[in-house]
Amino acid sequence: MKDCLFCKIIKKEIPSEIIYEDEAVVVFLDINPVNKGHALVVPKKHFETSLDLPDSILCDVIQIAKRVAMKQMKELKCGGVNYIMNNFKAAGQEVPHAHLHVIPRFDEDDLVFLQGNKSGYEDDIGEFREKLNIV
Amino acid sequence: MKDCLFCKIIKKEIPSEIIYEDEAVVVFLDINPVNKGHALVVPKKHFETSLDLPDSILCDVIQIAKRVAMKQMKELKCGGVNYIMNNFKAAGQEVPHAHLHVIPRFDEDDLVFLQGNKSGYEDDIGEFREKLNIV
Repeated sequence: MKDCLFCKIIKKEIPSEIIYEDEAVVVFLDINPVNKGHALVVPKKHFETSLDLPDSILCDVIQIAKRVAMKQMKELKCGGVNYIMNNFKAAGQEVPHAHLHVIPRFDEDDLVFLQGNKSGYEDDIGEFREKLNIV
Repeated sequence: MKDCLFCKIIKKEIPSEIIYEDEAVVVFLDINPVNKGHALVVPKKHFETSLDLPDSILCDVIQIAKRVAMKQMKELKCGGVNYIMNNFKAAGQEVPHAHLHVIPRFDEDDLVFLQGNKSGYEDDIGEFREKLNIV
């Protein structure tokens, strides 16, 4: 898509540090890494969020994320890895082209991934079960 | 696996608010939700992390996560959704049975998902490209 940062990276109009590429996805290092080796798995075709992604591409994305994570564990000797996919601005998505963050984690790093209202919804779980049932 | 909390939930030995279930995965509401409607997509077979998951199950997990996210957007009128998969304790994994968080987000919520050393690795990106290349 015109004016999409990631589409430009995919088309090599903007340079990036690519660590993997196939017909469906490209993986490059985040230019603003939150930790060393922070990578992004990006479908080549433009979709705004994962909710728009066809299941087959979503599978490509998560399978490649796993391979990236295994490589990070081996090469960076990290203790863990986060996969994060932010869908829409309210969820912190910064570039409106679907992408999955693969973030190496170390016992000693000071990243905090979840902070905020960690309570107050416990009592409503039953209500949400009714609403969210997708059976 | 014996003594695994999620295996017990899957076997219905411990009650939970299940919103979806098929042969491969179960989805239930997190008992400590960070936001209303916070759900977990959990493969029924016991694997410690996503790195151990066969690709086919990983695909099941992410496809169902997308369906849960669509349902959350529709029913909760949230503005976005995060998918988060923490692999190993260093990455914040609390239950050692692979699972994916699907977290509804609202413009007005106060969740902070990334905090910490947001800099210092930009200069090393080239080095990590060499190390992490999985082509």
